[in-house]
Amino acid sequence: MPEVYAARRSRLRGRFNAAGSTAALVSRPANVRYLAGPVPDGAVLLVGRSDAHDLLVCPEPADDRAAGVRTDDSLRVQTLTAGAGDPAVAAADLAAGHDADCLAVEEHHLTVARHRALRSVLPASRLRLSDLGRAVEQLRVVKDEEEISCLRIGAEIADQALSELLESILVGRTERHLALELERRLVDHGADGPAFATSVATGPHSGRRSHRPTDRRVEEGDFLSVSLGASYRGYRCSIGRTFVIGTSPADWQIDLYDLVFAAQRAGREALVPGSAHRDVDHAARQVLDSAGYAEGLPARTGHGVGLEIDEDPQLAPAAMGKLDACVPVTVEPGVHLPGRGGVRIDDTLVVRPEADGGPELLTITTKELLAL
Amino acid sequence: MPEVYAARRSRLRGRFNAAGSTAALVSRPANVRYLAGPVPDGAVLLVGRSDAHDLLVCPEPADDRAAGVRTDDSLRVQTLTAGAGDPAVAAADLAAGHDADCLAVEEHHLTVARHRALRSVLPASRLRLSDLGRAVEQLRVVKDEEEISCLRIGAEIADQALSELLESILVGRTERHLALELERRLVDHGADGPAFATSVATGPHSGRRSHRPTDRRVEEGDFLSVSLGASYRGYRCSIGRTFVIGTSPADWQIDLYDLVFAAQRAGREALVPGSAHRDVDHAARQVLDSAGYAEGLPARTGHGVGLEIDEDPQLAPAAMGKLDACVPVTVEPGVHLPGRGGVRIDDTLVVRPEADGGPELLTITTKELLAL
Repeated sequence: MPEVYAARRSRLRGRFNAAGSTAALVSRPANVRYLAGPVPDGAVLLVGRSDAHDLLVCPEPADDRAAGVRTDDSLRVQTLTAGAGDPAVAAADLAAGHDADCLAVEEHHLTVARHRALRSVLPASRLRLSDLGRAVEQLRVVKDEEEISCLRIGAEIADQALSELLESILVGRTERHLALELERRLVDHGADGPAFATSVATGPHSGRRSHRPTDRRVEEGDFLSVSLGASYRGYRCSIGRTFVIGTSPADWQIDLYDLVFAAQRAGREALVPGSAHRDVDHAARQVLDSAGYAEGLPARTGHGVGLEIDEDPQLAPAAMGKLDACVPVTVEPGVHLPGRGGVRIDDTLVVRPEADGGPELLTITTKELLAL
Repeated sequence: MPEVYAARRSRLRGRFNAAGSTAALVSRPANVRYLAGPVPDGAVLLVGRSDAHDLLVCPEPADDRAAGVRTDDSLRVQTLTAGAGDPAVAAADLAAGHDADCLAVEEHHLTVARHRALRSVLPASRLRLSDLGRAVEQLRVVKDEEEISCLRIGAEIADQALSELLESILVGRTERHLALELERRLVDHGADGPAFATSVATGPHSGRRSHRPTDRRVEEGDFLSVSLGASYRGYRCSIGRTFVIGTSPADWQIDLYDLVFAAQRAGREALVPGSAHRDVDHAARQVLDSAGYAEGLPARTGHGVGLEIDEDPQLAPAAMGKLDACVPVTVEPGVHLPGRGGVRIDDTLVVRPEADGGPELLTITTKELLAL
């Protein structure tokens, strides 16, 4: 396991060296985790000119976390004492001490105030600052099989939580209660916690992209949209399904469901290594466009998942880039009709070579329209 | 209600005008909420030279949120279309259009990348950028009675959730389950949700300042530390209590509990308008120091609460400033003995004039050591 982190730091080193920097300061939490494993909040990572120069700088410890507790990795750790200030400043100071001349920082994460503090401690004569950009985010896009295994387990957990809920009585229960129930079951089945705020949307709320559960109660005849995910060893995935409550869906509900199902299937089938990200979005979007639903659609069909629930790549109309094998993404189109409700269907899949049978579906709960 | 927000913006206007800026761009979510009410994620607020020049700039809407839905306020709203970019850049552009010559931004929030994007759209000849600093955080410290009422209700909700848990069987249940149970009860009793990740710590985990609930089960003889809070209309408070499981606490448990109780009481009694923040910390800390627990104590005794669970003021040894009336704070000292456990007692109180009877205690669950 520790070799994985050292190997990732080494790949990052190659990238910023090629871009002209001698060291990098990684501060975005998910990026630090990717390169160093689970670390205390606020820790920053200095990636130096070789593995021996890499250093994790942690803020002062909680009351009982002993300094230097990391026994599973060759990465050196420095834990600051109370009042010692920003770990980023300490790390930059050390980089300058190692004769780094150009330190790449994450300008999309560091605030202006923190960056200014770095510069005040380190005049340009001593250390220049450059932008690391999204170099770590790019490294994170293609997952190794260990990462995919964590996502697969997380998806199983979410599937289990959902299937248990579907066996229970739903009519009369509030969106909030159902959401809390799902989150409890995620933890029961081994999740660290939910991957994101669980959404349960009934009746006119159904099909909304980001719906915060309310006290509305499930009623006969409702569409019920559920969106949830598990975090497992830091890896997050998502599943979304829409059901009908009661025995006989209305015609408009069947028609809308079939349409969104077709759009989502088109998106899934477009997941081929080498396909453009925007073409995956287009595949799903045009099914909905053709049926007259061009207005009010979500801005994107899906996105990558991993240590963050929302990461590169974006499956969106203006997205650049192409899919690689071993990239996990969501495919989650939907249609919401204000005042009536709607349908959202979301899977997490891993892009695989066509010769291996196409994308690996992680979220296997049926997508057939169930009447509950 | 809308008048409250306009009045707050007006107070902010006075501050940045005095500092030489003609407009301000507020981007930190809690600060935007304080000045404009609940807004969509990513919205930024431009505070201009008068109320008529104030503008909320929102990113593209979710699928069914109509643009311009705010009907309860005089604040103008602009909602961007898909692909229109960063609301902060749009807001800065508008500020320049209003002949602002110096725009104050929150340098402790905006990233280097976003700040650079603002500057590239707005050469210095057109609009200078300055630092707003923590002007909004400073305005937020003293609460009005409406805000205090929300905190009071949140505290009641937390007290209720805790008391219900104490009536249930605890032995044999895991920390995780108890934490989830508490969070469910918070929502049952009307909270928007938990104020922060609920902590339940048993046995050797008890008394730890930031403990993530594990699968350890409650056992006879354990200390059990619970830390939770409710979010109510955006306002967050916290309560922490420590109990003993079983009928007969050990002598070391009674002694440690009495000590932490005394420290916490000393902290509470130091909450007088005009007292230095560091003196409140000192009052609690010295009780623990005198008993030999100087090492490993938390860095601070407490902190302000409001729209964020952790805000100014800090009750810490190096803190500047003095208490005002109507400032809500936590007082939460504790001692944790690695491998044995410990005690943490946390209340949320509102500083009140001594003539009014001293600080108003919001979290009224008994602090007597209960054997459960």
